[in-house]
Amino acid sequence: MREPPKFATLLLVKLAMSPRIRQSPYYRSTLAAGASAFTVYNKMLMPITYGDLEAEYDRLINGVSMWDVAAERQVQVEGPDADACVQYLSSRDLSKMVEGQGKYIAMCDYEGRILNDPVLLKLSGGRYWFSLADNDMLLWCKAIAHEKGFDVRVTEPDVSPLAVQGPKAEDLVAELFSEEIRSLKYFWFIETSLSIAPETDPIPLVLCRSGWSKQGGFELFLQDGSRGDELWEAVAAAGQKYGIGPGAPNAVERVESGLLSWGGDTTPDSSPYEAMMGKYVHPHIEADFIGKAALARIAAEGPKRLMVGLIVEGDGAGMLMSDRRTAIYQDGEQVGTLAALVKSPRLGKTIGLGQVRTEVVEAGDPVEVESQTGWVGASLTSLPFTLPGGT
Amino acid sequence: MREPPKFATLLLVKLAMSPRIRQSPYYRSTLAAGASAFTVYNKMLMPITYGDLEAEYDRLINGVSMWDVAAERQVQVEGPDADACVQYLSSRDLSKMVEGQGKYIAMCDYEGRILNDPVLLKLSGGRYWFSLADNDMLLWCKAIAHEKGFDVRVTEPDVSPLAVQGPKAEDLVAELFSEEIRSLKYFWFIETSLSIAPETDPIPLVLCRSGWSKQGGFELFLQDGSRGDELWEAVAAAGQKYGIGPGAPNAVERVESGLLSWGGDTTPDSSPYEAMMGKYVHPHIEADFIGKAALARIAAEGPKRLMVGLIVEGDGAGMLMSDRRTAIYQDGEQVGTLAALVKSPRLGKTIGLGQVRTEVVEAGDPVEVESQTGWVGASLTSLPFTLPGGT
Repeated sequence: MREPPKFATLLLVKLAMSPRIRQSPYYRSTLAAGASAFTVYNKMLMPITYGDLEAEYDRLINGVSMWDVAAERQVQVEGPDADACVQYLSSRDLSKMVEGQGKYIAMCDYEGRILNDPVLLKLSGGRYWFSLADNDMLLWCKAIAHEKGFDVRVTEPDVSPLAVQGPKAEDLVAELFSEEIRSLKYFWFIETSLSIAPETDPIPLVLCRSGWSKQGGFELFLQDGSRGDELWEAVAAAGQKYGIGPGAPNAVERVESGLLSWGGDTTPDSSPYEAMMGKYVHPHIEADFIGKAALARIAAEGPKRLMVGLIVEGDGAGMLMSDRRTAIYQDGEQVGTLAALVKSPRLGKTIGLGQVRTEVVEAGDPVEVESQTGWVGASLTSLPFTLPGGT
Repeated sequence: MREPPKFATLLLVKLAMSPRIRQSPYYRSTLAAGASAFTVYNKMLMPITYGDLEAEYDRLINGVSMWDVAAERQVQVEGPDADACVQYLSSRDLSKMVEGQGKYIAMCDYEGRILNDPVLLKLSGGRYWFSLADNDMLLWCKAIAHEKGFDVRVTEPDVSPLAVQGPKAEDLVAELFSEEIRSLKYFWFIETSLSIAPETDPIPLVLCRSGWSKQGGFELFLQDGSRGDELWEAVAAAGQKYGIGPGAPNAVERVESGLLSWGGDTTPDSSPYEAMMGKYVHPHIEADFIGKAALARIAAEGPKRLMVGLIVEGDGAGMLMSDRRTAIYQDGEQVGTLAALVKSPRLGKTIGLGQVRTEVVEAGDPVEVESQTGWVGASLTSLPFTLPGGT
């Protein structure tokens, strides 16, 4: 039997394309920009790298990077009962949410297991968007809305986010739109459009201060899929003086920053308390929502596992495959699983994210991680990792 | 801008692996057998070819082929209300269904749009499996069951089909199990196990006469994911004298045979009447099911589009990309879309599957298909294609 490849930043296989797997509105632009590997996310191709992971990391940390994240699909809920329906689908208290605001929320099933961790946007006209991780919530939301009798319409609208991330993102976005965007708070947004030429209709979009990194930035929720290449081109052109280049949700930065990858870090039985989302879960509000009783019970009992950072001895060679989870042991007994492992340029260390039994996390003693050459020692640490410079 | 590649049997991109994308219990065996390209199906890698599409087609048509189709995941429904819940989720009359029987069914939404076209198996102990195409029905089924108050448990069990397909499949499966399997009718099954060695526990599985080809064969629904490589090895060893080799759901054979690819041939607004499934949809039964009223209305009005075969002039060069749909025109007006195009060895022609407006299908006049070099003529034909030898 052929052995799986050794530790590498990315393990690749060849994917046969099919109309079943959608192309993003930016697909042709990303190919032209050199996209060299993809993932499939919400049944859509999403670029993962343009072939130079170090340069992509550097742009994100020190400059500005643009990402095709159209695969973050939206579920739109609109209609007279939208407020009640969206609250019923969400584990977070939404009673004070106002138009123009976004919130990071957990959507759970009846047993309090996390089905998705979207950003929820409250738009004008009583509409909401769940901006989703990789799980087909359209089916879930449609079934719930209909069977509960909510007077709403649930659809997947033609909305495709383009992320602009990094410390120079704000200057670029202010130049593209207006200086006023500098006062947008995190997860807040405006419904606007981008004028690209006098004779051309402006491109309709929602501009939100958000994105799957901790380096600051915006997501441009394009509202006309036929204009993806135009939007890409406009951002690339305006970004040139800031040294913009293409990138993608970054595996190294997100581990350093402790950002959750739903379905990667979590397993089908994970609760939001096990996924660092406890502070966004409110089982004691008056309004009913799915999983409320189960979440109250889990909160009272305390979660059995916690997400933690791991600092691993050595360079991680022979350890984690990027395609699977690795067992974490202590005193010869399995106490958790490691879901991601990267070499952190800013820490100069090999670090990971995993789920570990609560009592082991609280005791704080070192653990061991499986590798192809034996056991490798690791210490546990809270998330995000403490990085040089204090972020 | 870089041009997309010209017409090819398979368009490939590189896929970065992730714990978010599952590996099948047969994954290591398929790599060892030379799997060279995959698709992502129900969030699981599924091999698409082992690098020799002609040999794979030949084995399927003239010999026997084995396929890792673990990505056909099951949703299991069990409990006191299982019969009523499964009927509510299905557009087909299930009142006469008995244990040991499978049925090809449509699952629709409230507007009568097809969400999936699984084979439904009725097992012992009042359990059902929906054996699914690529759409996450677990979320749909859980939401419906809970909100309707059905007393059932809805899960994704540890069940991973391995298909054995081709004219020699029956001889092989009879040798592996018993001569009695020869009397199994199409879509019927037995709950059994495979003894592979005296000192080893038999491998638990469900053996069903089914599979996504018209060449005959069986699917072995493995019920213990830890034993995938053992099952693969046992089938490969016993199949040696029949010339067995690895394969995958075959794009050429399935077009020749007119088998539906949900999500490939269908679009999110397709009804089962537009997807050749009209005879399996029963909106006039007494029992209630999702989409019943909408389906009755669509049936009365008649579907606006129909799936048809197309016989295309020439060799198809410059025509259809394997990653997208192509427009079908008549008299300068778009009348449909082509979803798949292959060269049929048995017909010696270039053939395709598409959805075309009903009145155009009924008139039967030639159409034209877009290509990179202009218009290509095509004639419409019913499905399956009439193949030499009368099948």
